[in-house]
Amino acid sequence: MSKLVPPHGGKGLVCCLLEGGALDAEKKKAAGLKQIEISSQEKGDLIMMGIGGFSPLNGFMGKADWKSVCEKLTLADGTFWPIPVMLATDEASVKAGEEIALVRNGTLMATMKVTEVFELSEAEKKSECEKVYKGEGPDSAEDKFWAVAMEDHPGVKMVMARQKHCLAGPVKVLSEGGFPEKFPGVYKRPAELRKEMDEKGWKNVAALQLRNPMHRSHEYLCKIAVEVMDGVVIHSLVGALKPGDIPAEVRVDAINTLVKHYFVDKNVIQAGYPLDMRYAGPREALLHATFRQNYGMNYLIVGRDHAGVGDFYGMFEAQVIFDNLPQNAVAGKNLLTQPLKIDWTFYCHKCDGMASLRTCPHTKDDRVILSGTKLRKMLSDGSPVPDHFGREEVLVILRKYYATLTEKVEVKMQQAASGSVM
Amino acid sequence: MSKLVPPHGGKGLVCCLLEGGALDAEKKKAAGLKQIEISSQEKGDLIMMGIGGFSPLNGFMGKADWKSVCEKLTLADGTFWPIPVMLATDEASVKAGEEIALVRNGTLMATMKVTEVFELSEAEKKSECEKVYKGEGPDSAEDKFWAVAMEDHPGVKMVMARQKHCLAGPVKVLSEGGFPEKFPGVYKRPAELRKEMDEKGWKNVAALQLRNPMHRSHEYLCKIAVEVMDGVVIHSLVGALKPGDIPAEVRVDAINTLVKHYFVDKNVIQAGYPLDMRYAGPREALLHATFRQNYGMNYLIVGRDHAGVGDFYGMFEAQVIFDNLPQNAVAGKNLLTQPLKIDWTFYCHKCDGMASLRTCPHTKDDRVILSGTKLRKMLSDGSPVPDHFGREEVLVILRKYYATLTEKVEVKMQQAASGSVM
Repeated sequence: MSKLVPPHGGKGLVCCLLEGGALDAEKKKAAGLKQIEISSQEKGDLIMMGIGGFSPLNGFMGKADWKSVCEKLTLADGTFWPIPVMLATDEASVKAGEEIALVRNGTLMATMKVTEVFELSEAEKKSECEKVYKGEGPDSAEDKFWAVAMEDHPGVKMVMARQKHCLAGPVKVLSEGGFPEKFPGVYKRPAELRKEMDEKGWKNVAALQLRNPMHRSHEYLCKIAVEVMDGVVIHSLVGALKPGDIPAEVRVDAINTLVKHYFVDKNVIQAGYPLDMRYAGPREALLHATFRQNYGMNYLIVGRDHAGVGDFYGMFEAQVIFDNLPQNAVAGKNLLTQPLKIDWTFYCHKCDGMASLRTCPHTKDDRVILSGTKLRKMLSDGSPVPDHFGREEVLVILRKYYATLTEKVEVKMQQAASGSVM
Repeated sequence: MSKLVPPHGGKGLVCCLLEGGALDAEKKKAAGLKQIEISSQEKGDLIMMGIGGFSPLNGFMGKADWKSVCEKLTLADGTFWPIPVMLATDEASVKAGEEIALVRNGTLMATMKVTEVFELSEAEKKSECEKVYKGEGPDSAEDKFWAVAMEDHPGVKMVMARQKHCLAGPVKVLSEGGFPEKFPGVYKRPAELRKEMDEKGWKNVAALQLRNPMHRSHEYLCKIAVEVMDGVVIHSLVGALKPGDIPAEVRVDAINTLVKHYFVDKNVIQAGYPLDMRYAGPREALLHATFRQNYGMNYLIVGRDHAGVGDFYGMFEAQVIFDNLPQNAVAGKNLLTQPLKIDWTFYCHKCDGMASLRTCPHTKDDRVILSGTKLRKMLSDGSPVPDHFGREEVLVILRKYYATLTEKVEVKMQQAASGSVM
């Protein structure tokens, strides 16, 4: 019997993905339905509903759920849920009761039985942003939030750009969006990951949420977890990120290399999940914990500025939120996966190893700390990265990636010079 | 309100130590009572009963408790308890109902209302040893155990040497045996340590059981705990050890130095407790967890060969025992403090830091591992200790200690040469 944490919501894994004959029949039917184009975020959410990653959700949210999630962190029925999962379109003709097809870039993704069509006013969308995306960082200051967020917060921009007509209702998912083919052995459904962990006999498992390449500080987070739990899942987002972030393929390659050289194979699993980042900081940490519960991990490593962007969130706001959930949100079908809170980590010369602000009593000068910007510059221009910051085997992969970027720029410049582009 | 784990047994801290006027009166009374000399181990047990460290015990065990603890890991009333706490004497005149005084090396330690006097046969004592001290290591092999144990197991030898008449009954403790004076700021009663932790707001706290000087591997155990919990208590045995072990004063000094240079003060507490080692391996790990619960720590770090001696126990037998407690032992007033299990730890050159068998995939040659014997030799003869094994500030203290030993030997040799000794 599995020793893993049960899926969220008490209904087991709720999977809306069709397979075999049912899939073929539904695809045939879908051809005759109204085609609604969906966003990248909606595609990720849909696949999660397909594979059980968003259990107990079986479709996009209606207005009652939307309001309850924003204000009370639960679905209207009292089940814990931290972030709205919405579908919106500019197509005005869709009516409640209608069946529609959901399409992304020409690929049929799902069908949906529309149970509710509603609009959210500008004021309501703003309230969603303030409830879900506003934090305690300087960029969230009352007089500043909206100006900065509309420039620099991808999540807020996404909500505000959401189209007029919200559609709610249960979905039948018809595609995993190419993820299984693009990330073989890494993209795993919750049931697959659970099976793998059951075979290892795991019970206490931590997930490392990852959207960046792993350096020593991420490795250290994982290793702390491995020291005290049955194992760690390095669980990368393989959906879309903001521009400038390192693509999933490169990250997966880097993780494979790191695991091969620096982990004990039996205590670690690499896996990927198909969501896009929302950059909702604390609320997204809760979402990350919620779907990790579905994947079978009962701990989520929450470090510094989890799922943050800019200066919208306090450094450890995403840790604190787990302790301050409203009473109603922990009263019903509540979140079982807990945060494994770890402080800011780094290599310290005096400690002679990895440490955090909780374990290292030394000064800034003893620590190897690099901003993302500085690191990108070093990797791009081939200058040496400070000792102990990353693993050489990983840095090689990142340097290679940045070199291809530079080549692309050079090709463009040459083409521009020869008049073939621009 | 305290967030710490409550004391074991559901009766709060059961403290048999008298103070103030009651102490004076009891001392006066004790002068007229029969004086029974007790062993060093009995003295430690007595002080623990005095300060609440052995809650809910309020005296030495009778035969029913002895039998139940050996066979079922509970007191006769069903409360979890892993090791007999016995008082024995060769004085045949003590009768049930009598009040006696317990004395150690001329110091009045306690009075005791004798409720039961009984004998344990050789066979019964042997059965106690086999139940409590025999493990799964090579020295515990059926055809070997008794021969090896009577030579090399201090705990077994102590049981077998226990005198004829066992005395049971509640105690009134009249002295803390000089520990508060000898270890000021380190020797702490459970209530004192709890107060200190409450002031820090701690809830999840790990205890490091310590009877050796701290090297990098012990420091790493503590730091893993600090990374994931509210704090760690470095909790040293300041009672008696086997010959050749480093005395508590030196260890305390070394810990102070280590904490000062390598820990963040607010996340660590140093404390000492007055027990002698029994070297009972897994059963002693359970005892260590039991009295840590009384001190307020809800986790006990259990590493390699916890409380072991020779080759009597499997390397991780003391971790496994927590998962395999008999049903009756977890059914009633059970142990709440849990093991924080950590694998064999060491510095690894390829890992570029501390690691364990769970986190380091490299080979023996990459790791800095030293036997106790080798280390002692290096410290004694002043030869260099391999890099990364210990902290220089700590090694200086140990070298100084070993130098005084050598001086003592040299003085003895000179005295011998000049005919003043031997």
